[in-house]
Amino acid sequence: MLKGKHLIEPGDLTIEELEAIFTLADAIIQDPKKYSDTCKGHLLATLFYEPSTRTRFSFEAAMLRLGGEIIGFSEPNSSSVSKGESIGDTIRTIGCYADIAVMRHPKEGAPKLASKHATIPVINAGDGGHQHPTQTLTDLLTIRSYRKSISNNVIGLCGDLKFGRTVHSLVKALSRYEHMKFVFIAPPELEIPPYIIEELGDHPYDRTSSLEDAMPELDILYMTRIQKERFFNEEDYLRLKGYYILDQKKLEHAKEDMIIMHPLPRVDEIHTEVDQDPRAIYFNQAKYGMYVRMALIVKLLGLGGDLHA
Amino acid sequence: MLKGKHLIEPGDLTIEELEAIFTLADAIIQDPKKYSDTCKGHLLATLFYEPSTRTRFSFEAAMLRLGGEIIGFSEPNSSSVSKGESIGDTIRTIGCYADIAVMRHPKEGAPKLASKHATIPVINAGDGGHQHPTQTLTDLLTIRSYRKSISNNVIGLCGDLKFGRTVHSLVKALSRYEHMKFVFIAPPELEIPPYIIEELGDHPYDRTSSLEDAMPELDILYMTRIQKERFFNEEDYLRLKGYYILDQKKLEHAKEDMIIMHPLPRVDEIHTEVDQDPRAIYFNQAKYGMYVRMALIVKLLGLGGDLHA
Amino acid sequence: MLKGKHLIEPGDLTIEELEAIFTLADAIIQDPKKYSDTCKGHLLATLFYEPSTRTRFSFEAAMLRLGGEIIGFSEPNSSSVSKGESIGDTIRTIGCYADIAVMRHPKEGAPKLASKHATIPVINAGDGGHQHPTQTLTDLLTIRSYRKSISNNVIGLCGDLKFGRTVHSLVKALSRYEHMKFVFIAPPELEIPPYIIEELGDHPYDRTSSLEDAMPELDILYMTRIQKERFFNEEDYLRLKGYYILDQKKLEHAKEDMIIMHPLPRVDEIHTEVDQDPRAIYFNQAKYGMYVRMALIVKLLGLGGDLHA
Repeated sequence: MLKGKHLIEPGDLTIEELEAIFTLADAIIQDPKKYSDTCKGHLLATLFYEPSTRTRFSFEAAMLRLGGEIIGFSEPNSSSVSKGESIGDTIRTIGCYADIAVMRHPKEGAPKLASKHATIPVINAGDGGHQHPTQTLTDLLTIRSYRKSISNNVIGLCGDLKFGRTVHSLVKALSRYEHMKFVFIAPPELEIPPYIIEELGDHPYDRTSSLEDAMPELDILYMTRIQKERFFNEEDYLRLKGYYILDQKKLEHAKEDMIIMHPLPRVDEIHTEVDQDPRAIYFNQAKYGMYVRMALIVKLLGLGGDLHA
Repeated sequence: MLKGKHLIEPGDLTIEELEAIFTLADAIIQDPKKYSDTCKGHLLATLFYEPSTRTRFSFEAAMLRLGGEIIGFSEPNSSSVSKGESIGDTIRTIGCYADIAVMRHPKEGAPKLASKHATIPVINAGDGGHQHPTQTLTDLLTIRSYRKSISNNVIGLCGDLKFGRTVHSLVKALSRYEHMKFVFIAPPELEIPPYIIEELGDHPYDRTSSLEDAMPELDILYMTRIQKERFFNEEDYLRLKGYYILDQKKLEHAKEDMIIMHPLPRVDEIHTEVDQDPRAIYFNQAKYGMYVRMALIVKLLGLGGDLHA
Repeated sequence: MLKGKHLIEPGDLTIEELEAIFTLADAIIQDPKKYSDTCKGHLLATLFYEPSTRTRFSFEAAMLRLGGEIIGFSEPNSSSVSKGESIGDTIRTIGCYADIAVMRHPKEGAPKLASKHATIPVINAGDGGHQHPTQTLTDLLTIRSYRKSISNNVIGLCGDLKFGRTVHSLVKALSRYEHMKFVFIAPPELEIPPYIIEELGDHPYDRTSSLEDAMPELDILYMTRIQKERFFNEEDYLRLKGYYILDQKKLEHAKEDMIIMHPLPRVDEIHTEVDQDPRAIYFNQAKYGMYVRMALIVKLLGLGGDLHA
């Protein structure tokens, strides 16, 4: 049912479609060799109009581990594709060479526009501060794998909740599941915006500026970075940032089976001493990101077939 | 007979060699899967001293769809190969790693020079405004596929006929075939140069500045872009450019089975409304570009063997 | 025994480990097809924080000819991996996508630091002026192949012996073998430093400023470039450089079976007339560089197995 579809924003996928992707991702994780030729003879175009090595690597590794191949560019300079050419013409031409395309673009809406003219599936790999749906898929698969289900979790989201695209998309996505509770942990300057709160529907939520207060009830702690540029003055930044740095001391009252997530890259918002804690799963999260992209590519190419309805 | 040869300019290939390449391209188009491992174990080096994403993608997709692999660079900055090194040394070193090389270079003659020192076949993918032989091969295969034969066609070439490398090469190549008629459609400032006319031999030709007048007799309309920079002043450009923009109205008196070609990228010289017209085949042309490069690579590597003499 | 190890500097490998790599390289040279799927399903990450097309091509060709695949970047700009992120976090994330990594970095020690946090083998492909161990492996394999053994050779090293990283590493590596004699051929300004002389142990050595005087006794002549920037003034450079340019005349008194090596790129320190001389093996040296990297990758991935103890 996913064959030939585009993925521009997380809401493009129904809960059932998400479940089909996650089920396939599970199967790949169980037996990656079984899928090592699934995309043989297929080409992925990675069109990065803005550099993002991490995301590009994740998609390229995904395709290559499926036996597929890659053409692409990794930054605008090296691309003459778009020289005066409309994005519609570009994607139609790419469709002559490749079977599926991933697009990262500094302009909001560029991947959406491309998908309207495309003859092949287009995956949005980030358009400005707008959408980054495969990050959300990564987060959902990680939660589903470590917490057994996406439903029935208390999730704390900590850091820059005002501007953080990743957090907004994840909150929207999680609010489609049952029995969730959200705890928004941020300084007043960086609180979660009202329009995201509205997405929660009937789900209960709390707001707090104290990571330590929130800790004991959390099943999931989702850390994000607070960027210095978000503050009016440096004193505020320096005064506040310590409150939102996760270290072993702050974890003392956390649940034993809580998981600590982070979209990476991490700068200093999680102390490296936490890396050894079994609850710290953010590097594995990156690995789940590759697996979920493998499942997504297989589904959009229609190669998952009868094996994984 | 093509094994180990270089392709620096279209004239390097005899009509028979061209025919062998096109016959193989046809076979690949008919059954691409049959050729999906033909180049297994072989490496193509894409040496782009000047960025050209479209051409690079076409070559890379061609090699990957044959089961081969790619090493390469896509712009001069990322290349330290040539740091003070002669192009002869560079290509000899590349020959240690790869089995065939594609070179795009801003300097006329660079691929020719490289081929003289090379131990592997070198394909010119554009050297300055000089030659771009695989574009010509693309055009010939497209004509041959849509018009059944390259011979016996009336072709109209429209746009910048003075500076357009693509047009010059195509005219030279077509004049080697029988029963051609050429119609050169351009403003006086951008007329086809006399030395190209000389290449026509006995072939009949017309010159006109009116696309609409030329239209009714054409079997093939080859559109190219008129670059603003070619005009002495902006008024001339603005006054003239409308005459050479193809839209549905101008197509009213065209033949039913005429084909509309364009080397791409298109800017505004073909209105997007034309894209839906069945005569508009310029995006398929890009696909034929990939297929003809597949056939060329197989032939130069000597892998087409007895199957396609 | 090499499985999972890192290669940061040549001394990381024992003589036995080197021998195992060279033996496998020999087997690959004898029958490359046998190894064309050895790394199938494995990914190499090429992390070039500093461009080096030649070295990157050599590693990529090596991995691709083993049936493996590549993800990577070729210059710092196109990499957002390290944006504020520690090198430890970067390599841990890369380890989620790839099975082995090659790193080139302008800062000394960066690959070493990465290896400490890595979950996959890390190969140093050059860190500043510090180490470049696979160049040394290349040189050793070349000597072993052309001279039957690494031991029992008189080697002349000519050019910039003061700053040349390649020469320093090679001298250290060769001094671990038996019955070597070293002849250091350089102008006084660019003599071999005392701390390298100390590495020689009991091996005999000579110093001379005359390439012609040294020539008759050499089994191996290792040429390197003299960079203009190394001299205080241009007159000295111009006066001296001719003494260290190898041409046919200087080769008149060389042994019949002497081999001429050069790490490439060559600028003008070897006259092109020498290229035809059967003793000139510097382009083959580049090919051996690819083969030794093939063997190294197989060994570090633990895929050489029982076949090549």
